[in-house]
Amino acid sequence: MPMPDAAARLGLEARIDLERFWQTIEGSAGIGKGRPGGLSRLSLTDSDKAMRDLFVTWCQDAGLVVSIDELGNIFARRAGWSDAEDPILIGSHLDTQINGGRFDGVAGVLAGLEVCRTLDDLGHVTKRPITVVNWTNEEGARFSPPMVASGCFAGRYTADWVRDRIADDGCRFGDELERIGYRGPVPCGGHAADAYFELHIEQGPILDATRKKVGVVTDGLLVHGMLVEFTGETAHTGPWPMEKRRNALVAGARWLTSVDDLGWDFAGSGGKATAARLSAWPNKPGILSESALAVCDVRHADPTAARVMTTRMKRAVGEAAIRSGCEARVVDEWSYGGDIFDPGLIALVRAKAEALRCDWMELSSQASHDAYFMAEHCPSVMIFVPCKDGITHNNHESCERDDLDAGLNVLLHAVVERADR
Amino acid sequence: MPMPDAAARLGLEARIDLERFWQTIEGSAGIGKGRPGGLSRLSLTDSDKAMRDLFVTWCQDAGLVVSIDELGNIFARRAGWSDAEDPILIGSHLDTQINGGRFDGVAGVLAGLEVCRTLDDLGHVTKRPITVVNWTNEEGARFSPPMVASGCFAGRYTADWVRDRIADDGCRFGDELERIGYRGPVPCGGHAADAYFELHIEQGPILDATRKKVGVVTDGLLVHGMLVEFTGETAHTGPWPMEKRRNALVAGARWLTSVDDLGWDFAGSGGKATAARLSAWPNKPGILSESALAVCDVRHADPTAARVMTTRMKRAVGEAAIRSGCEARVVDEWSYGGDIFDPGLIALVRAKAEALRCDWMELSSQASHDAYFMAEHCPSVMIFVPCKDGITHNNHESCERDDLDAGLNVLLHAVVERADR
Repeated sequence: MPMPDAAARLGLEARIDLERFWQTIEGSAGIGKGRPGGLSRLSLTDSDKAMRDLFVTWCQDAGLVVSIDELGNIFARRAGWSDAEDPILIGSHLDTQINGGRFDGVAGVLAGLEVCRTLDDLGHVTKRPITVVNWTNEEGARFSPPMVASGCFAGRYTADWVRDRIADDGCRFGDELERIGYRGPVPCGGHAADAYFELHIEQGPILDATRKKVGVVTDGLLVHGMLVEFTGETAHTGPWPMEKRRNALVAGARWLTSVDDLGWDFAGSGGKATAARLSAWPNKPGILSESALAVCDVRHADPTAARVMTTRMKRAVGEAAIRSGCEARVVDEWSYGGDIFDPGLIALVRAKAEALRCDWMELSSQASHDAYFMAEHCPSVMIFVPCKDGITHNNHESCERDDLDAGLNVLLHAVVERADR
Repeated sequence: MPMPDAAARLGLEARIDLERFWQTIEGSAGIGKGRPGGLSRLSLTDSDKAMRDLFVTWCQDAGLVVSIDELGNIFARRAGWSDAEDPILIGSHLDTQINGGRFDGVAGVLAGLEVCRTLDDLGHVTKRPITVVNWTNEEGARFSPPMVASGCFAGRYTADWVRDRIADDGCRFGDELERIGYRGPVPCGGHAADAYFELHIEQGPILDATRKKVGVVTDGLLVHGMLVEFTGETAHTGPWPMEKRRNALVAGARWLTSVDDLGWDFAGSGGKATAARLSAWPNKPGILSESALAVCDVRHADPTAARVMTTRMKRAVGEAAIRSGCEARVVDEWSYGGDIFDPGLIALVRAKAEALRCDWMELSSQASHDAYFMAEHCPSVMIFVPCKDGITHNNHESCERDDLDAGLNVLLHAVVERADR
């Protein structure tokens, strides 16, 4: 494809079609309905398949070339006029939490699609190709950990390891992927990308409270998480003396309680600590539990505070084990966040928000996203849009279409400037 | 049947056949094998059916008349010479915990069978009939609560309510009962009984530590238990501020921790507090839990201490809820124990232990048993035999055959004296 003439440069007046975008969101919200107003579209379920099928149709209708990789990641590519250049990726995820909303993830994928449709309307061909991406199992609501597929793409996990993840329902990631027909032929990862953009609802109350429409994400809150296994011994809940008890459920409960206390100790400076999961065995009346798996994490904007919280969370593991006569083993440990996003892309997004005269502000991401892993692979950035009261991972998650307008246009202009450079 | 002459009275030299009893125990231990040395024979599973089938065969081989009631309780009746009199019941349970032993429950049922076999060997016909009973789902390891079938027999629960119990595996009690073919035609309960005897391993370390062979059970430790539902709200584990969080998993963990603390406060005087079960939803990384079901209980030999522990356990429910922004609802509450056993039967067991020159002692039951409900229905008593180190609800539960000899003979002579009176 030849280089278009200079007149074909995208003018600042170009706008995405908000109404069409909203209709697309409405279409997606009909699949995997959960509680009133919400969605429960868990990864690699029948509803995830239905959503993927519809998304692929929309992409093909928009003339995009769709390919699927071995972990079910979907890539929908719009050619550039210098098509051998590394593409610009715009992505997020179509899966939701078990009690999720209609915007978390979906908005970012469909925003990418809308950028492509808008460029078609305007007859604008970018220099570099643009690829819209849906990452499999971002939420981790079915298969733990979250963001496994972007993690594999970025080299953190192997595809075999990801396929061997087992859900609480006993299903294996790889089997479910085959079942819904989304194990593609393309290897996961190893593709160069010029840049990665992800638009996402903030999942926090700051933009909504301050009436800002665009969040220029500068960094990610430092998060440190742990999966710990406590091991004790079954015994009768009746006669067995306290001093002989080795109840792993108590060890887990004590750790969760300590971590929650820790959250309160740092709440004044915005810290958070989460007791996320506790699952014991046999976990029945009449018998002390032999084992318990527990997941907690801590996060803080200040690196020193984040470090202190992490240290105390770790110390609490041993304390909980000793207090309950159990052993503790750290099965997994992870950390996310920090100054992971690309300064050049942050400046680009900021410049576009300013040029478009949006109500914008800089802020940190407090949740983890596929962009966290992508930032290890190529220059990456995120754009946040407001959601009502910051409510998310709940069927009351809500956005007005006006909340999305400015963010979508910032995405459009930032992507095109990057793609045309 | 005519009254036998006075010479047919059972002499004190009569003994059960310990070798035959042990062979029967060994036979039962081949069904529903669990971890090495242990059993995992959960109620109304295929292995429970296999054990029931074998038990019924053994009973029929011994000439007992078997009937099954609508909850699967098995009654094996040996006629008396005054057969219209109310029977003497000897019972316990054939089901085990998920990581259970080879004696808990089973020993008491097979002891009843051995008493009947021994009387046949001796040609002794008692005045009153003797009925050996297997109670369905004593352990509560599959269907909660425990002791539902003896509870229904004694009028605590209706048969419909029991049949509607749902296991963690999603199966319904009534459906599983039909499936294994043990829904009998006889209504549960409403049958008069002259007395109920239950032989059981102590499930505590006292007899083993003091080298006593027979425990004359005088009463049951006062136990107070609660099933509490905590309700919060799902939200993102990342950005959601501590002060807005309503994490039901934290409420549950806090309650369990407080109850365990309470156990330690009373450990010096022999009190126990158990955090038995915690199950939250969605219980996943990334999302705060909306609901949690938790089960705890407290027990103490001293009625005042038991009352204080109960009060504090209840107060801790509200504290846990308030600390975590959740609501709490007491779904169920139960208490067992106290001076429930019949003084006349206790004196009878004591007199036989003395007459047979056993190493015996009086003690309290610290675990709950079917005898607790039966004591509401007819005069009841328990006989304990030692188990190694008091270990139970664990595959390392262990008895030597000599541990059971004295208890079995006390049971034989006490039952016959009662049956012949």
